[in-house]
Amino acid sequence: MPRKSRTTKAVQRYLGGQVRRTVLPNGLRVLTERMPHSHTFSVGFFVDVGSVSENPKLNGASHFLEHVLFKGTRRRRPEEISAAIESVGGDINAYTAKEHTCFYARVLSDDADLAVDVLADMITSSQIVGREVQAERTVILDEIAMHADDPVESVQELVSARLLPTAGLRLPVIGTEQSITALSRGQILRHWQRNYHPGSIVVAAAGDVDHDRLVEQLAALGDFGAPAKRPPRPLRGGPAGGERVLADKRPFEQTTVSLAYPGPGLFEAERFPLGLLSVIIGGGMSSRLFVEVRERRGLAYGIEAGETSYADGGLWSVDWQCAPEKVEEILILVRAELEQIAADGVQESELERAKGQLRGQTVLSYEGPQSRMSRLGTAELTGDRRTVSELLDEYDRVDTAAVGRSAAALLDSEPVLALVGPRKPGRKINKLLG
Amino acid sequence: MPRKSRTTKAVQRYLGGQVRRTVLPNGLRVLTERMPHSHTFSVGFFVDVGSVSENPKLNGASHFLEHVLFKGTRRRRPEEISAAIESVGGDINAYTAKEHTCFYARVLSDDADLAVDVLADMITSSQIVGREVQAERTVILDEIAMHADDPVESVQELVSARLLPTAGLRLPVIGTEQSITALSRGQILRHWQRNYHPGSIVVAAAGDVDHDRLVEQLAALGDFGAPAKRPPRPLRGGPAGGERVLADKRPFEQTTVSLAYPGPGLFEAERFPLGLLSVIIGGGMSSRLFVEVRERRGLAYGIEAGETSYADGGLWSVDWQCAPEKVEEILILVRAELEQIAADGVQESELERAKGQLRGQTVLSYEGPQSRMSRLGTAELTGDRRTVSELLDEYDRVDTAAVGRSAAALLDSEPVLALVGPRKPGRKINKLLG
Repeated sequence: MPRKSRTTKAVQRYLGGQVRRTVLPNGLRVLTERMPHSHTFSVGFFVDVGSVSENPKLNGASHFLEHVLFKGTRRRRPEEISAAIESVGGDINAYTAKEHTCFYARVLSDDADLAVDVLADMITSSQIVGREVQAERTVILDEIAMHADDPVESVQELVSARLLPTAGLRLPVIGTEQSITALSRGQILRHWQRNYHPGSIVVAAAGDVDHDRLVEQLAALGDFGAPAKRPPRPLRGGPAGGERVLADKRPFEQTTVSLAYPGPGLFEAERFPLGLLSVIIGGGMSSRLFVEVRERRGLAYGIEAGETSYADGGLWSVDWQCAPEKVEEILILVRAELEQIAADGVQESELERAKGQLRGQTVLSYEGPQSRMSRLGTAELTGDRRTVSELLDEYDRVDTAAVGRSAAALLDSEPVLALVGPRKPGRKINKLLG
Repeated sequence: MPRKSRTTKAVQRYLGGQVRRTVLPNGLRVLTERMPHSHTFSVGFFVDVGSVSENPKLNGASHFLEHVLFKGTRRRRPEEISAAIESVGGDINAYTAKEHTCFYARVLSDDADLAVDVLADMITSSQIVGREVQAERTVILDEIAMHADDPVESVQELVSARLLPTAGLRLPVIGTEQSITALSRGQILRHWQRNYHPGSIVVAAAGDVDHDRLVEQLAALGDFGAPAKRPPRPLRGGPAGGERVLADKRPFEQTTVSLAYPGPGLFEAERFPLGLLSVIIGGGMSSRLFVEVRERRGLAYGIEAGETSYADGGLWSVDWQCAPEKVEEILILVRAELEQIAADGVQESELERAKGQLRGQTVLSYEGPQSRMSRLGTAELTGDRRTVSELLDEYDRVDTAAVGRSAAALLDSEPVLALVGPRKPGRKINKLLG
């Protein structure tokens, strides 16, 4: 099969990069991938803290802290942090996820030292002044309102809160109006000290990187933080109980819908057949559902399927936006497609196409330094030692029967249907969930 | 100044690429940039047609046509178009803008011929079957509803419709419910035949490109389309008259705001000082307004300024989202900042920082093949023969006085304030516009 071997060669060209890994005496991990022809430097500090590290009272503390760490250090006033990077034309930003927090920058490689210095300064030497905490609190309350205005965010939050298997995973990253209003400067300060220390941080960089120089620069940071004992890994509890149809009536024109099922975690083998099922049923414009729902019937602008996987579990969903009166018709088509695959499996040629699509997309997605830096950091943090090539090999080993079994397993589990839109659905929609 | 010469070197390393340009006998233009270390191929067909080519009755025809060209050719059934590219792991997509329509693909370079073949097939040999036109009509009506649910889109539409200087530029790309419902298959077919011909198309490619091979492949297309005489370039008429406060009351949590002024077109020298004013006042997290509104006062999650330029004119705006009761307070701060710059100018060091930011951001933005392909195609289509380095030189020549004059010129012109949110603003908001 010439196509297969060719793509595999491309995978090797791209993904067999020059990765180096160093663990400093204080426990800080440094991973780099040198890309010989790059003139830019992308670096991220990945911290092992996110909403999974919180409880309802502390909910949103990791994200609040991420904001506050931009507000001045012992050496830099608040506006000097972003100005240092932006004045050389670089980007600096951060995000908080359920399982980690990342601070990152991209600069021309001549400015690599500066980028590392600024990020390290924020993470180790922030001031966390009360006045800045107050200003940022109102910004985060605005951000919560912005999320509420976004139907896609709203639907994802409904589904996560109901289906993810641990209490921590079910919390919203951004927190709630109540928790954000109540969080004190002292709580945020302690959250920082307990969670930001060398052992909880991975620094990943890609592009025009000098590994030894980076290690030297980071070694100079010495020790910081006051690590607390980590609570034991939460027991996977299965989805929260409750209604299967979660409807949020909101005056949008369209209804945003997610049909979601419990899904595998990052380390479960079920990821691989399920990932290929996602491609076949709802990955891109040639997928079964896109062709049926959008191309043949013009029922929605788009429809897609995919898994969201965390270390402790995940979910699988089909997502779309449509006119309110078309929700049920589309839902019937989605269920029918799943049932057909569960009963008859998929065709060999269809599976081969899906594998090719997955391999090619993976290779193209790792073209630039930022995506490689990001992969290095998150994989190290979750303890995932498999290379991208090894993961692709796992997908390659999946056969048509396994994809059929994935669909059948979904249909045997309890789905949730989340809807955000102008109408409450009728009662009979429950029956359409099977 | 070592910083300046260093960045200039980086600009040359990046932007002095190996660009080749060929005009085929039939008028089709081909531009390529070979990036020696790339293994991917990005290609776009840029067509000189968009909403500026329409009138209210035909409004949305260019975008409708873009959709319909994915629906099957003489050689390929509808689902075979995207499947051809996706099965090798590539991307294929298209967008319609006010001044052009672009069909593009990205693949591993071994699949370059395939990508060109599929795109050329769509553009020259589509079937435009009535049934497909009908299905796509409902999809576009859904897309219109999705836009209405997006407050940022809605605000931009209000501002464009009121401030852009020609009737064509003021039309929404997507059309209106009325125009989309009324457009016939015949009208769409004629819109295609008249606007898609070799003389109206630029093919641009970047990455691992073989220019001669691409030219040969495109030459084989021969002639196509039935070009109509182009109407004369519209006279620049200045903004449409009417209210200065455009408020759309919608039940969102936040209010989305745009304070907009008439701005220069692509070829006007005023672009350069105004572009630097944008960076200083609202470009990134170290800009004056971000520091004042977000960092110091916590009034909004973000705020930014920038120009939108077309061949026949443009606009300049400051944009933000905030709690409804904070609109006026922020508006006063924005006006005060503009007035202060108009009166006192900006500092030399501030301008130098802004130039560094602009240069660096430009260089980083052209790191990958897709952005270079896109720049090649759009610049050729608008007849902009300046290289990116030449444009950066123009910015470098701007002095502090010119930035001050830009702010003064804005304040002398008639702004528009567009608001989409839960409350109608009070009458006195008119006074805050100066």
